[in-house]
Amino acid sequence: MAIITPQIISWPEIRERLRSVDLITAMASAFSAYSQGHAVIPPVGELQFTDPPGDVHIKYGYINEGSHYVVKIASGFYENPQLGIPSSQGLMLLFDQKTGQLASVLLDEGRLTDERTGAAGAVAAKYLGPSNIHCIGIVGTGIQARCQLRHLSAVTPCREGVVWGRNADRAEQFCRDAAKFQMTVQVVKTLAELGHRANLIVTTTPAEKPLLKAEWITAGTHITAIGADGPNKQELDSGILSKADLVVVDSIEQSKNRGEVFRAVDAGAISPDSAIELGQIITGIKQGRTHQSQITVADLTGVAVQDLVIAQAVINGAP
Amino acid sequence: MAIITPQIISWPEIRERLRSVDLITAMASAFSAYSQGHAVIPPVGELQFTDPPGDVHIKYGYINEGSHYVVKIASGFYENPQLGIPSSQGLMLLFDQKTGQLASVLLDEGRLTDERTGAAGAVAAKYLGPSNIHCIGIVGTGIQARCQLRHLSAVTPCREGVVWGRNADRAEQFCRDAAKFQMTVQVVKTLAELGHRANLIVTTTPAEKPLLKAEWITAGTHITAIGADGPNKQELDSGILSKADLVVVDSIEQSKNRGEVFRAVDAGAISPDSAIELGQIITGIKQGRTHQSQITVADLTGVAVQDLVIAQAVINGAP
Repeated sequence: MAIITPQIISWPEIRERLRSVDLITAMASAFSAYSQGHAVIPPVGELQFTDPPGDVHIKYGYINEGSHYVVKIASGFYENPQLGIPSSQGLMLLFDQKTGQLASVLLDEGRLTDERTGAAGAVAAKYLGPSNIHCIGIVGTGIQARCQLRHLSAVTPCREGVVWGRNADRAEQFCRDAAKFQMTVQVVKTLAELGHRANLIVTTTPAEKPLLKAEWITAGTHITAIGADGPNKQELDSGILSKADLVVVDSIEQSKNRGEVFRAVDAGAISPDSAIELGQIITGIKQGRTHQSQITVADLTGVAVQDLVIAQAVINGAP
Repeated sequence: MAIITPQIISWPEIRERLRSVDLITAMASAFSAYSQGHAVIPPVGELQFTDPPGDVHIKYGYINEGSHYVVKIASGFYENPQLGIPSSQGLMLLFDQKTGQLASVLLDEGRLTDERTGAAGAVAAKYLGPSNIHCIGIVGTGIQARCQLRHLSAVTPCREGVVWGRNADRAEQFCRDAAKFQMTVQVVKTLAELGHRANLIVTTTPAEKPLLKAEWITAGTHITAIGADGPNKQELDSGILSKADLVVVDSIEQSKNRGEVFRAVDAGAISPDSAIELGQIITGIKQGRTHQSQITVADLTGVAVQDLVIAQAVINGAP
């Protein structure tokens, strides 16, 4: 045991190191460890700002008998793009579990959170999506919308998509960016059209009122809800969750006070014990999709164990 | 508004910058802002480790209409000194309140927490201590014991002290170190003797069972309790708080679930509404010590507003 000099790693180096990391496998292992009870993950810390609007999440925790604990600060200031600044900001910190010494400062500017969230969406699609995905529907046109679509290409051969956003120009730009990773995406004018065309849907907005309605969702569709990571956010009408054959969360504990499941339970649409964890499906303790005609929902609020695993993967190389 | 490149400042530079900061004034202003309701300070985040034992506190928040929000990680791993590593570890981070961008990384290795805690003890002594302090009693022989004594020299002319610790060698070393800042300190063998000799007492240990008993505390004494910053720590017998004429905390909110006041309320020794805030005394809303014969207690669990103010003072120069 010795005095540690913290290593400070900036985004260009993190990005380079990420090339050799299999993020899908890393996130699946993170959810497995979490659902097996190997991780200690206290409640998320939060700060809210109103002028301009922004929210900050502080996620922290460790895996028992691991080497480090993580603290991750991630914020969303949704007016940042008007200033030429990404809405996501933040960093990750790794500390030695035995002495508390700071080991690594990952100056990822919020991008590792974007990446691990994107990879988590792909894990959800891998375990819950229908076997024949014919069209991917993306709700939202920001960084996370791109991240989700990019990571999905690792788990489905589908290369067709539709996108819906409030801003037409940004939706068009999204389609041009998607083409760079071989996805052919068309803008749709309504969420009803998106619901009818896509059988894998990912929602990525900071909406505080439901965008997607149950009547627009067709049999056999899987929906991953990413945007609602706090108690006041909601993208899915609670009727979607009551209609779904399977509701999956990354963390049952966190779903008690944030995300789509929290809102649906609060509205009386589903019972508090109706959700199972993604990690339980990955480890085979619970069943995922059992029929192609089922509607499934994955509500991901983001768990610190994902931050721990991605940060350690960047530091140590591939998991 | 522009893209910010975070400045990363290591301890030697922080220490140099601290020379021009009046920490006593800075901490008094922090407590004032807090008690006037200008600060947003959510509950403390915590992690516990058992092998080796350690605890981590994550404190975060901001002052309304200020420039930055702070996240501070501070840990105590009390077996570290056996490895030649300070028990306190951690860092502070400042983020822009308008965009969430990381502005400053203060690699202080936990020392800014030590310093702001030491200065807070001096603020408590300034507002609550008897006018004729004849002997300072220090309970504990670690970093914080030194910090408290050093900062006290700014608010009292008293240069005589006694120290108690479980380890005789460390207590002797404490006396030698205290001499470096012109304090003449003697080791006492019992806490009873410390209580009888000192009329300003500061407790700085991670004890989980009371060390000081009410019968040892003489009239006119002020006690600042520093060590108990979590729900399981306690240095003062609850009888001391029920005997005291005045019980003061840095944060009434935090005292509901951590520190001496929490333990005394839990034990039924004092009522939940018996404590007032240090910031209320500083701003004149509440009275501090009104007679020299009073016994006063300040229970400081440490508030993120102190971290914000010391970090900003380091970055911007004197407050």
